Amino acid sequence: MAKLPPLLQQLIDALRVLPGVGPKSAQRMAFQLLERNRQGGAKLGAALTAAMSGIGQCQQCRTFAESDLCSICSDPRRQQADTLCVVGSAADQLAIEQTGQFKGRYFVLMGYLSPLDGVGPAALGLDQFAALLAQKQINEVILATNPTVEGEATAFYIAELCQQYGCSVTRLAQGLPVGGELEYIDGTTLAHALSGRKRF
Amino acid sequence: MAKLPPLLQQLIDALRVLPGVGPKSAQRMAFQLLERNRQGGAKLGAALTAAMSGIGQCQQCRTFAESDLCSICSDPRRQQADTLCVVGSAADQLAIEQTGQFKGRYFVLMGYLSPLDGVGPAALGLDQFAALLAQKQINEVILATNPTVEGEATAFYIAELCQQYGCSVTRLAQGLPVGGELEYIDGTTLAHALSGRKRF
Ligand SMILES: [Zn+2]
Ligand SMILES: [Zn+2]
Repeated sequence: MAKLPPLLQQLIDALRVLPGVGPKSAQRMAFQLLERNRQGGAKLGAALTAAMSGIGQCQQCRTFAESDLCSICSDPRRQQADTLCVVGSAADQLAIEQTGQFKGRYFVLMGYLSPLDGVGPAALGLDQFAALLAQKQINEVILATNPTVEGEATAFYIAELCQQYGCSVTRLAQGLPVGGELEYIDGTTLAHALSGRKRF
Repeated sequence: MAKLPPLLQQLIDALRVLPGVGPKSAQRMAFQLLERNRQGGAKLGAALTAAMSGIGQCQQCRTFAESDLCSICSDPRRQQADTLCVVGSAADQLAIEQTGQFKGRYFVLMGYLSPLDGVGPAALGLDQFAALLAQKQINEVILATNPTVEGEATAFYIAELCQQYGCSVTRLAQGLPVGGELEYIDGTTLAHALSGRKRF
């Protein structure tokens, strides 16, 4: 093994696409699969191949889906909802679904506006979103974009769009995270928590 | 996404075979590949499929190889060496190769003796190893097994085998790791370092 077998070297290199996987852990992963779990490794290979080519986007809400409509957009109960939550990614949508607190519809941007990177409204499906608002079935749009510069800019753009269609807009509350300790909270968050204070 | 698309759920589950990857990071990996790097994900899928089925073992030293002999066993200069280093895994062999200090031959056990798990000498290719010793071309066997109970037991077994064939046996020095601080070194290591002390 003065030189690793090419297939092994290629596997180690390919594992680097995974977030948080550097050269050392890619090597450890490759050896461990080859030594102890070739069946699991082959299964992962097949799952990756199938997922990368077989998962598309829901034609209505843009989230990941294997068919034209995702499971939420094909659920009649949820499609009757007049509340729509806008999120930046399918992972954010999953996080909100997992709270079990929201029973409305979604629109998944799959990114944020970023003019410098050439990401405009069309790339986020916002024409499609406007067409949805034009149908006048949505009463409230909840903006659940990230509390980052890009997330805020995108939220602002969408809020204006909603106002054009006479649709009310809300956004997720900003404040102290549950379990957070005051002294470790950043100043901006603390300022938001203070200005958004509620009667006890 | 009340329920994730099956292909996505299968991908998340399959990623769990990787060492150190729990449910949360498997989810993060799957979303990131789908959102940002489908090409890299597809490439990883193909690399896994190819490696898991295409990488076998060298017929001489048992390390990972794509053909009958690995690159070391097909290198005439190294095959003339009369020193053979016994390691527990291909990863250990790679670590030794990367020191650049060893130019001899290897024998890769791909495990350690573990009677309770049904791993006996035959499973580690020790009959093959004995046949190699019988050819009388090896003068020194370096035991580079792990300094663990199983590694020590295996080293002891192999040392006896070497003595039967009149072959000299050495083992890696035990002592302080370079850069280690004395107060944090465990007592057993410190004891080995003391008993193996050398003239300054
Ligand atoms: Zn949908
Ligand atoms: Zn070999």
